[in-house]
Amino acid sequence: MEISGCAPIEEAGERDLTFVANARYARLLKECRAGAVIVGLDVDAHGRNVLRARNPQAAFARALALFDARPRPSPGVHRTAAIAATASIGAGSHVGAYAVIGDEVSIGGGAIIHPHVTIYPRVRIGDRFVAHAGCVVREDVIIGDDVTLQPGAVIGADGFGYLPQPGQLPVPIPQIGTVEIADHAEVGANTTIDRAAVGSTRIGRGVKLDNLVQVAHGCQIGDGTMLAAQTGLAGSTRIGRDVLAGGQVGFAGHLRIGDRVQIAAQSGIPSDVPAGVVVAGTPSMDIGLWRRCMVALRRLPEILVRLRVVEDRLRLDGEPTDGDED
Amino acid sequence: MEISGCAPIEEAGERDLTFVANARYARLLKECRAGAVIVGLDVDAHGRNVLRARNPQAAFARALALFDARPRPSPGVHRTAAIAATASIGAGSHVGAYAVIGDEVSIGGGAIIHPHVTIYPRVRIGDRFVAHAGCVVREDVIIGDDVTLQPGAVIGADGFGYLPQPGQLPVPIPQIGTVEIADHAEVGANTTIDRAAVGSTRIGRGVKLDNLVQVAHGCQIGDGTMLAAQTGLAGSTRIGRDVLAGGQVGFAGHLRIGDRVQIAAQSGIPSDVPAGVVVAGTPSMDIGLWRRCMVALRRLPEILVRLRVVEDRLRLDGEPTDGDED
Amino acid sequence: MEISGCAPIEEAGERDLTFVANARYARLLKECRAGAVIVGLDVDAHGRNVLRARNPQAAFARALALFDARPRPSPGVHRTAAIAATASIGAGSHVGAYAVIGDEVSIGGGAIIHPHVTIYPRVRIGDRFVAHAGCVVREDVIIGDDVTLQPGAVIGADGFGYLPQPGQLPVPIPQIGTVEIADHAEVGANTTIDRAAVGSTRIGRGVKLDNLVQVAHGCQIGDGTMLAAQTGLAGSTRIGRDVLAGGQVGFAGHLRIGDRVQIAAQSGIPSDVPAGVVVAGTPSMDIGLWRRCMVALRRLPEILVRLRVVEDRLRLDGEPTDGDED
Repeated sequence: MEISGCAPIEEAGERDLTFVANARYARLLKECRAGAVIVGLDVDAHGRNVLRARNPQAAFARALALFDARPRPSPGVHRTAAIAATASIGAGSHVGAYAVIGDEVSIGGGAIIHPHVTIYPRVRIGDRFVAHAGCVVREDVIIGDDVTLQPGAVIGADGFGYLPQPGQLPVPIPQIGTVEIADHAEVGANTTIDRAAVGSTRIGRGVKLDNLVQVAHGCQIGDGTMLAAQTGLAGSTRIGRDVLAGGQVGFAGHLRIGDRVQIAAQSGIPSDVPAGVVVAGTPSMDIGLWRRCMVALRRLPEILVRLRVVEDRLRLDGEPTDGDED
Repeated sequence: MEISGCAPIEEAGERDLTFVANARYARLLKECRAGAVIVGLDVDAHGRNVLRARNPQAAFARALALFDARPRPSPGVHRTAAIAATASIGAGSHVGAYAVIGDEVSIGGGAIIHPHVTIYPRVRIGDRFVAHAGCVVREDVIIGDDVTLQPGAVIGADGFGYLPQPGQLPVPIPQIGTVEIADHAEVGANTTIDRAAVGSTRIGRGVKLDNLVQVAHGCQIGDGTMLAAQTGLAGSTRIGRDVLAGGQVGFAGHLRIGDRVQIAAQSGIPSDVPAGVVVAGTPSMDIGLWRRCMVALRRLPEILVRLRVVEDRLRLDGEPTDGDED
Repeated sequence: MEISGCAPIEEAGERDLTFVANARYARLLKECRAGAVIVGLDVDAHGRNVLRARNPQAAFARALALFDARPRPSPGVHRTAAIAATASIGAGSHVGAYAVIGDEVSIGGGAIIHPHVTIYPRVRIGDRFVAHAGCVVREDVIIGDDVTLQPGAVIGADGFGYLPQPGQLPVPIPQIGTVEIADHAEVGANTTIDRAAVGSTRIGRGVKLDNLVQVAHGCQIGDGTMLAAQTGLAGSTRIGRDVLAGGQVGFAGHLRIGDRVQIAAQSGIPSDVPAGVVVAGTPSMDIGLWRRCMVALRRLPEILVRLRVVEDRLRLDGEPTDGDED
């Protein structure tokens, strides 16, 4: 049979390929209309056309690449691109309409620079750079090979550094450092990575930042770390390798987060975290303890009642007098 | 008397119209300087010029429309707009300076496309589209009638999907799906809606997304739902109709949120929520329970003291030994 | 000896100046390779070349300004800038490629307007305005002197105001007000400040907003206040002077926050806060109480066990019957 596309299991039609990796969706296998399904080695196929794979998601990802029919810009420079005379762009690159590339910028080969990208002066970028529409890369930023910026990402804005002045307005501290992004990093839409006051904010190899993430000045993020959307780092925090953070996580400043740490969504990290730990909550704690605390939290009103009963039995007056506690 | 403008009650002058809907502001009625006030049917007018309305806010909104003097761009295409030869734009549309409209894009009549908007190839958009400056709509996105995008909104960026590779960098999963936005939806400034890996991320009729909202790949948002600023959805979550979420709410992935659910600001939703429920907290719970828990939470230090007193009375040693709990 | 640059203490080389202000870094003094170090008046210098200062950070900030070698655009208007005939721009200003400046805009002298900035019609801006690439300033906004907008900031997008319509889609309330930003304010990358429905959203003198901050319609922020990244304000909230908020803080709408209030990161502020108070948590409370509550929270599972032991001793059955609490 002929397969003409890929689709989620609930929407797949007779000519679509789909997959089941999550046990939650296995029950949908029986009634789905997909032409073929990629499943694990021991899933009940309910008589369907199946491709079996040790890792169904990985196999499906390879299938997706086969069906990727998204337009890809051809090499060439749009007549409206404003490229400084002192800038250099490698062979095979595409530069879209109204892209602005500043003085002394160097960009490697095979780049795809979409419309309205602004590259400030003296930026150095490796090969196969992809910058979607509206990205901004500020002066002196250094970017490796195979880096992708989604639309609206801002690299190298001034860090948020001010000197408080008693009785006067805070004074900006010049942010004369920069940002360095290593190979294979990807930066999400409207995500912001600030330049360091001195030295560099550093994004490691293969780091993946989702949309609307904030990386403050002087932070370092280790190779392979992935931060989900709306996560934020305060200044000078260092995150290790292969760390995973869910969405809306907040890191205080000047922390050291070890390798392979995992952090549940919405957690707030107030202090250093050793390697390999899994944490949750604000302030964050071991995720197992956090789960028990959250179960117990729902029983707090009940605990107060039970404590009152105990005190009554013992003829204790446990209630605080006025003015106790806040 | 002549009314020449509208103003908030605390700033309204003698020629201004204002309104009082919120009880909090009713006390301001007596001393305000407004020329006229729209009030509810039974509010004490303190001798002011009043217009009485069952819904003062709605009546004031109609008055605002009368006084809306903001400049509205006239139909016409700016000479610098870069519109592909294969794109079509309906009658009566305005296309601003440096707007970029890609191959095979179709846009209906009466559009207002502000400067620096980028529409990637093969996007299809209905009538009366408004795109403010700097918006980006990626390839193949489908948008209905009467949709408005505030400045910097990004529609159709690649979803955050990677295959973890033990000992190697994570591999991107091609995001070959798209985004579909139904009629009358509005998208806030710098909000991001990612394209699906397969199929579509779907935004329903009349959905209102505030600023800096994140909608991940494969999500679906039902008709009439409103999400306040900085709220985020992880992948594949489905939100029903007429849901209201306060700001900074986080939804985990793969959830089902029923119709008419209401969610307090900053809540974290870890699991499915049935229709009509009102929830709060991280992890979220019934809002009534949450309020009682939060009142009790402030008494936790006191509870510990009282429990110690009880244990002393009973000559119990309740303190955990070393190594207990974390 | 000759100093040629500034660097963080861990990266400083023989020709670099660095500083130590934070006790956390004092231990690095002994082994660092810096050519010179700015330290406090009574820090052990370990035989290094030192400059002593009452405020080492302030002294270092002055040194940074000396070494600031970032390119600064020269006065002049790029040939591609689209400036309306009725707009005026003061002497000594730089206008970059593809900047768009609308009808009846007035901008003072010494401005630096980077590429792809869009200024809608009738905006009035003071002297020494700096707008980085991709900023958008919507119609009728008023901006004072010495204001800086980082890349992607959006000023004056429509406020999120809708009238709920039972059984129908919500109806937008025209947002006919504007935004006023006072002198010396700075706005972070991709931060959004919405225009008021009526009157003005007001940003005070010297206010510093970090990246990805959301200021809703009708808010007022007092002079000198600093809000860290990803903080959000719901509508009509008024924040006093010299307030400090950490990252990811959320403010409910219609609040009054007093002068000099300090707010820990990720706090959620549900109600008014008097001047000078320091708060934390969601819902927020006095930070001292919050710290005690958070310490106690980790002991909640233990508290439940101890309460059970007490009840057993008293032969009480404290467990709730089915159906109790949620």
